[in-house]
Amino acid sequence: MDHRPIGVFDSGLGGLTAVKKLMEVLPREDIVYLGDTGRVPYGSRSRETITKYAGQDAAFLAGLGVKAIVIACNTACSVALGAISAEYDMPVFGVVGPPAAEAVRLTSNKKIGIIGTVATVRSGAYVEALRMIAPDAEVWSAACPLFVPLVENGRASAGDIVVRAVAGEYLAPLRERGVDTLILGCTHYPLLRGVISEIMGPDVAIVDSGAVTAQRVARDLGEMDLLSGEGGRRRYFVTDSTEGFSELASIFLGLSVGGSVEQVTLE
Amino acid sequence: MDHRPIGVFDSGLGGLTAVKKLMEVLPREDIVYLGDTGRVPYGSRSRETITKYAGQDAAFLAGLGVKAIVIACNTACSVALGAISAEYDMPVFGVVGPPAAEAVRLTSNKKIGIIGTVATVRSGAYVEALRMIAPDAEVWSAACPLFVPLVENGRASAGDIVVRAVAGEYLAPLRERGVDTLILGCTHYPLLRGVISEIMGPDVAIVDSGAVTAQRVARDLGEMDLLSGEGGRRRYFVTDSTEGFSELASIFLGLSVGGSVEQVTLE
Repeated sequence: MDHRPIGVFDSGLGGLTAVKKLMEVLPREDIVYLGDTGRVPYGSRSRETITKYAGQDAAFLAGLGVKAIVIACNTACSVALGAISAEYDMPVFGVVGPPAAEAVRLTSNKKIGIIGTVATVRSGAYVEALRMIAPDAEVWSAACPLFVPLVENGRASAGDIVVRAVAGEYLAPLRERGVDTLILGCTHYPLLRGVISEIMGPDVAIVDSGAVTAQRVARDLGEMDLLSGEGGRRRYFVTDSTEGFSELASIFLGLSVGGSVEQVTLE
Repeated sequence: MDHRPIGVFDSGLGGLTAVKKLMEVLPREDIVYLGDTGRVPYGSRSRETITKYAGQDAAFLAGLGVKAIVIACNTACSVALGAISAEYDMPVFGVVGPPAAEAVRLTSNKKIGIIGTVATVRSGAYVEALRMIAPDAEVWSAACPLFVPLVENGRASAGDIVVRAVAGEYLAPLRERGVDTLILGCTHYPLLRGVISEIMGPDVAIVDSGAVTAQRVARDLGEMDLLSGEGGRRRYFVTDSTEGFSELASIFLGLSVGGSVEQVTLE
C-alpha cells in the first residue's frame, strides 16, 4: 500500500483523456497532472527538444514525490520513455506499449494501423513495439499533424466538413491497406473517435492508447502493492496561465475538473 | 551610418516573410533573425507567457549588438511591444502600427478588417492603433486559429478544399460587414493571400503587415542615419533543432535561405 500520488504528464491538456480513464479504473488514487501548456505542442519538434522538455516534466513530478509516472503524451513517450525510465527508481508507464499489445490481441488479419503526430510516427516507437510482440504483423503509420489543432479549436464533430476532409485524407492509405485495427496514438484523438470510426468503417477495431494504458497502470501498481485505495484527489499544474484551464480541460475530461490548478515554471 | 545588424524575431519562421521584404528594401543591411521554434506558436498562449518569451527573444538580439529590433510576430508585437520599447535604447519596430496606418490610407468606406491569431485579436492592439489614427473608422477583427497550422503543413493553395472551407468560414463575418481593406495581421498569412483575396473579392485591398513594416524600417533607419549600405549578410538562430530549417524557411522566404543557422537556448 502506498498513499503517494500517481504523476501524469503531457505536452498540454490532451493527456487529460488518459487521466479520465485512470480516474475510472482507479477512483481512490491521488493524481497529480502536469500539462506543459507553455510549450505545447511537442509533436512537431525535434527529438532533442522533446527529450529535454519531457525530462523537465518528469523531474517536476518526481520532485512532488509521486510513486509512478505516466507519460500521457505519445510524442514524449515515443521519444523519451527510455531515458526517463532509466533515470527514476519508480514505475514509468508510457502510452505506446500497452496499446501495441492490445492491438495485437484484437487484430484478426494481422494488419495494424497507427495514427499520431509527426514526431510519434517519425520515432518508429509503435512499429518497433509491434515488431517485438508480433513480428509477423503488417504495420502502417500515418502522421495526422492537423488533428491536434482541429481538436484544440473545438472541431471534432463528424459533421464538420473540415474535419471530415482532413481525416478522410489522412486515413485513406490505412483503409487501402485493409488494416482491421487502428491505434489512436495521440491523447487528443479519442475526441475524434466518431469521425475516425465512421471513415474506417464498423469492422475496424479502434484502440485508445490512454484507456488501455490506464488499465495497465491499475494492474501493474496493484501487483506491486503500490495502490492506496484511500485517495481520489487531483492536482493540476500547467506552465502557461491557469486562465481558461477549466473550460479547455473539461473538453478532454468530459466532466468538470475538480481539484486545484497552479501555474509552474520548469526551465 | 551604422554597420551593426538589424535584429528580427518571431515565434517561429513566419517572420521570415518580413525578412524577405526587408531584404528587398534594404539589400545592403546585415540581418540577424531569431525564430523561437522550440516554443512556437505564441498565438494561443496567455499574455503573461507571450510577454516573457518575447522579452527573452529581444534580450537575445540585444546581446548580439543589433542596432534596431523588429518584432516580426503580430502576436508578440500586440502583447509586448510597449514593454520591449521601454527596455531598450534603440528603435523597436512592431508589425501593428505601420499596417494600421497603411489600411487607413487605403480605405475608401472606412470599414477595415483585421485577421490574426487568437492572442493578437484578443489584445485589441490593431483596434487601438486604428482608433488612434482614424477614430471614425469602423473596425472588425476575426481570429483565424487554424491558419498557422494549415500553412505550416503546406496547405496554402486556393485549390485546397480544407483551406477554402476554413478561410470561407473565418472571413464570412468580415465580408458581411463590407470591409474594403483587410490587414493580414500575422506573418504566416501572406502565404494564404491567394485564397484570402479570392474569398474577399477584387475590391478589397489586402495589407501585408510584414511588407508595410519593412518599408517603415527602411524609412525610419534612413532618417536616423542608422543604415549601413555595406552589408547584406544574414544569420539565423532557432531554439529547436536546425534540422529541417532550410526547407521550412524557404517556404516563407520563397528563396534559398543563404547564411548560417545556429541553435540557441533562451531560458
